[in-house]
Amino acid sequence: MFDYESKMDQYLEKIEELVRSKRYAELRDLFLPMEPADIALLLEEAGAEQMPLLYRLLPKELAVEVFVELEADSQEMLINGFSNTELQEVLDELYLDDAVDIVEEMPASVVIRILDKATPELRKSINEILKYPEDSAGSIMTVEYLSLKKDMTVSDAFKRIRRIGGELETINILYVTDPTRHLLGVLSVRDLLLAEEDDLIEDIMDPNVIWARTLDDKEDVAQALSKYDFLAMPIVDMEQRLVGIVTVDDAMDVIEEETTEDFEKMAAMLPSDKPYLRTGAWETWRARLPWLMILMLSATFTGMILNHYENALAGCLVLNAYIPMLSGTGGNSGTQASTAVIRALSLDEVDFSDTLKVIWKELRVSLLCGVCLAAANFLKMQLVDRVLLGNEAVTPIVCLVVCLTILFVVVFAKCVGCSLPLLAEKIGLDPAVMASPFISTIVDATSLLIYFTFASRLLHL
Amino acid sequence: MFDYESKMDQYLEKIEELVRSKRYAELRDLFLPMEPADIALLLEEAGAEQMPLLYRLLPKELAVEVFVELEADSQEMLINGFSNTELQEVLDELYLDDAVDIVEEMPASVVIRILDKATPELRKSINEILKYPEDSAGSIMTVEYLSLKKDMTVSDAFKRIRRIGGELETINILYVTDPTRHLLGVLSVRDLLLAEEDDLIEDIMDPNVIWARTLDDKEDVAQALSKYDFLAMPIVDMEQRLVGIVTVDDAMDVIEEETTEDFEKMAAMLPSDKPYLRTGAWETWRARLPWLMILMLSATFTGMILNHYENALAGCLVLNAYIPMLSGTGGNSGTQASTAVIRALSLDEVDFSDTLKVIWKELRVSLLCGVCLAAANFLKMQLVDRVLLGNEAVTPIVCLVVCLTILFVVVFAKCVGCSLPLLAEKIGLDPAVMASPFISTIVDATSLLIYFTFASRLLHL
Repeated sequence: MFDYESKMDQYLEKIEELVRSKRYAELRDLFLPMEPADIALLLEEAGAEQMPLLYRLLPKELAVEVFVELEADSQEMLINGFSNTELQEVLDELYLDDAVDIVEEMPASVVIRILDKATPELRKSINEILKYPEDSAGSIMTVEYLSLKKDMTVSDAFKRIRRIGGELETINILYVTDPTRHLLGVLSVRDLLLAEEDDLIEDIMDPNVIWARTLDDKEDVAQALSKYDFLAMPIVDMEQRLVGIVTVDDAMDVIEEETTEDFEKMAAMLPSDKPYLRTGAWETWRARLPWLMILMLSATFTGMILNHYENALAGCLVLNAYIPMLSGTGGNSGTQASTAVIRALSLDEVDFSDTLKVIWKELRVSLLCGVCLAAANFLKMQLVDRVLLGNEAVTPIVCLVVCLTILFVVVFAKCVGCSLPLLAEKIGLDPAVMASPFISTIVDATSLLIYFTFASRLLHL
Repeated sequence: MFDYESKMDQYLEKIEELVRSKRYAELRDLFLPMEPADIALLLEEAGAEQMPLLYRLLPKELAVEVFVELEADSQEMLINGFSNTELQEVLDELYLDDAVDIVEEMPASVVIRILDKATPELRKSINEILKYPEDSAGSIMTVEYLSLKKDMTVSDAFKRIRRIGGELETINILYVTDPTRHLLGVLSVRDLLLAEEDDLIEDIMDPNVIWARTLDDKEDVAQALSKYDFLAMPIVDMEQRLVGIVTVDDAMDVIEEETTEDFEKMAAMLPSDKPYLRTGAWETWRARLPWLMILMLSATFTGMILNHYENALAGCLVLNAYIPMLSGTGGNSGTQASTAVIRALSLDEVDFSDTLKVIWKELRVSLLCGVCLAAANFLKMQLVDRVLLGNEAVTPIVCLVVCLTILFVVVFAKCVGCSLPLLAEKIGLDPAVMASPFISTIVDATSLLIYFTFASRLLHL
């Protein structure tokens, strides 16, 4: 592949040299063949001082494409440096969904300036999209789509595409609506090309259209697009009228963002929407401290349990050495189950109605794993701890206590691990929050209770 | 959204009733308006007995689209029931990349039968694609793309689309090649539609084409498609000749699969490629046991450390109560850093050359987090453990030992957590394997060493 990242430093050096020697025409020619996403990356890396200069070297249309790819703070800086005419030019070229994305990220003062310089129609459209909740399909749709009437002929359709197709984000998928904008059918530009000039749209369209509502969760809509291999999903309002489309590139961005959020939540972080190296230390600290604090304080319970059994422990101190292994194994077993279920939930493979099936599966898996782990641990305690290390305190009864605890802890951890995410989904919480750290904390306390129950019964402590 | 999942049970009941009363025409009409992915889901849920019957009700073209969406075991079952003519019909309708996917999943006996019934050209193409390594772009590309010559006019191009466009997976993106198949440019069907009939392709194409090589990693190619918002990526061979394209729907599938694998590896599971509920208990057990076993046995070290300090502990048993909190906090801190870095690596936001920047960031974040956690814990020990629970053993020095340990453990855990995935990437391992459970195990042992070092110095144990 054209591996851009590896040549980044060379390009940056070249840019710096050309800027220094004021060879602006050469600079422009350097950028021209590149993709907007790559130019944006170079501008970001070249730094805030050179960015406005470099940006102004780009031809107008390319400049806007690059602008869309920049991070929010760079966009803000550029806008603040724009003259009113420059700002208007950018706004005129933007696709509506990109304009909305930018407005959403800017501070109020910049938003006011943008809305002031936008055309009345653009202002109205931006305001309409901004009304949709942040996670809704409406918030990521574009209203610039191509609709046809059912009594048009194929050649009428081509005329319409030639007239307005240049301003639209996509013409690959076309929707057929009635005069009240209700969806009647869908067809691809290929269907048009393969049809006869005088065929009626009605006869070549597919009347079975899958659509989503403006208020549907944008992640569900993105997953549906992926499942059906669509290039766009039509979005209808409460009265089932077509109001916009979500395109596949936006769906991919949504899936990427939501996946990153899942990873962050599952690792006990608050989600952030900036790339790793662009998030400052304070911001990262704010995202990470809350859960660390909650989980640390909730470990008080495990401390209390250990205090409670202090005398029992003092009587048989060897038991203490196995506690990290027990809580680690319990935590890992629970994490496996919760991660598998959280991922299955986000891919729509399971839902709450499958709870019994899921628990039945995890129960069998955990028994299999528990028996194997207990057996392996039995061998290890006999061969390593007793024979190799010569620890006399590792009696057969101690061995039995540890191995029984492993079995019970693994079963408990897997059952809790698989059911908590399902429960969270049911009561409207994000299942990803019920992940590894949360479950480890529950399993830690429970495994101690199981351990000491066996120990006091079997060792008569 | 048309929420299919929620109506699944209703549909299944209806299907069963129609099958029982042999109302096959109605059954067929029930399926006709549905998307192939949904029909496939219904067929899977209806069970192996009814599947062949239901499948045969579908019109030929729809049937093949449904076939592609089925799980591998269902495809195998259907193929085993097909007559030779039926198999040939399916093979004739399949897109090449789907045919290759199917061949890759089938056991040898079925593959032999498929290759036997395929046309010589299809057999040759399948064999060619199968030669590419499993994770390469070549293995997921399709060779059915539309290429144009630079001296064609727009109307020549339309003629070519009308002639062969029906058999291609996509005509939205067209590639321009020279007689030796070297890539000269790219254009979209929209560019064609907006041009004049007698414009030359050469004049309207974009000569700056981003391409990937057959042996490039398929995940990198999928990420590039997403970054550039492409609908397809051209794939060239070692001599830079165009040999195929990767389409956006396949790229989305690759990203989804690789993300699921990352989740699985980060939760200490071996990756599996089947949906959660379709994986049997034995199969799940095989994927989960190895890492649980390795991590359990490596916890032997923490046990040995505890044994080593047994006498010190016996002298000040209250220290024991804080061990789970310390190892939990260390584990969670490390997991946050490793998860953030693993995700940033898979989104291409950082690479090994950023190691110093990453460590510098994590060092600052961990100092901030460590100080806050130590302070909160100090308050908690004073107010809860001493005053509320009246534990006399919690002296100011014990308090100091615990709080100092927290600070050092958090800093250590975050630095290890962020650097191990980068190191893994550098030496060619999968960074995702260096995740939570692995790092927790390292941090567990180290936090005990730090703890007992402070304890023996400050408490003179």
